[in-house]
Amino acid sequence: MEGFTVWLTGLSGAGKTTIATLLASELERRGRLVEHLDGDVVRRQLSPELGFSRADRDSNIERIGWLASRCTRLGAAVLVSAISPYRETRERCRAMIEEFGGFVEVFVSVSVDECRQRDPKGLYERALAGDIVNFTGVSDPYEPPANPDLTLHTAREEPRQSAERALDKLSELGLVRPALGA
Amino acid sequence: MEGFTVWLTGLSGAGKTTIATLLASELERRGRLVEHLDGDVVRRQLSPELGFSRADRDSNIERIGWLASRCTRLGAAVLVSAISPYRETRERCRAMIEEFGGFVEVFVSVSVDECRQRDPKGLYERALAGDIVNFTGVSDPYEPPANPDLTLHTAREEPRQSAERALDKLSELGLVRPALGA
Repeated sequence: MEGFTVWLTGLSGAGKTTIATLLASELERRGRLVEHLDGDVVRRQLSPELGFSRADRDSNIERIGWLASRCTRLGAAVLVSAISPYRETRERCRAMIEEFGGFVEVFVSVSVDECRQRDPKGLYERALAGDIVNFTGVSDPYEPPANPDLTLHTAREEPRQSAERALDKLSELGLVRPALGA
Repeated sequence: MEGFTVWLTGLSGAGKTTIATLLASELERRGRLVEHLDGDVVRRQLSPELGFSRADRDSNIERIGWLASRCTRLGAAVLVSAISPYRETRERCRAMIEEFGGFVEVFVSVSVDECRQRDPKGLYERALAGDIVNFTGVSDPYEPPANPDLTLHTAREEPRQSAERALDKLSELGLVRPALGA
């Protein structure tokens, strides 16, 4: 089966990992081999020495992009959940991945205010207090996709609805078969 | 098809990359998806910041092991060609990979003297002159496998013969089908 990568980009706390996890279960239920590459997890595994400067963020994201391209080549359904704040870096990843399969950019869109209210890890509070520097959306830029394949508004839809909309998009693009009995 | 990893370990210049490249072609000819993870290539791609201390070598090899385990999980025929001088580190990689498929340790065995005579990149000369520190086999240890699945003696067999012996081993272990018409 042809591989593809769904690239979820958005602010910290937007819901990327939650949506990717739901999407992974559903794709596995449909018989796909899934590789979920989460920004934080890959950073710990492959790049513990990198920080959050632009250069270091770019290195981390490009390593994820390279990994995603390898897994796409092997036929996996790859889910990337990573802030990936820079448009140019995401485009470089797209180019690597599209050599081997589909690339679907999903913008997990939510306001910084909404993220501040959720703030499950207390990171926004610390960033606003100046305890964390280079924090995306507070003291570091986030460049939204110019033309994403899909935008998910997680302030007004549940994670399950977002995951379903992403699956619908994958079906529409011919990357997954419709669910049995659907 | 079930994934597996063939791990070629041995001194610099022993012939690991050459044999892995031949093995990759043959496995692709037999319809397998192959992922060749070469120590030098992965280092440039994922770990340009790492040097050649024991800790840095271990980090590089463990990253390769993790990658190999992901690709094995996706059903690939993974070929690792990396000096990977430390037994304990190779065993950690084996454990990661065996969660998902077969692990075949191939010792590419050749003496340091033979490598010095070949020395295609002039590295042994520089290491012996003291221009390169931490050079495996000269100023850094190499721990040969205690019980490899296969030992290839590249001083007395051609790379093509070595690749064929590796393929025979993979058939014997039930990891690849015999060649058509063989």
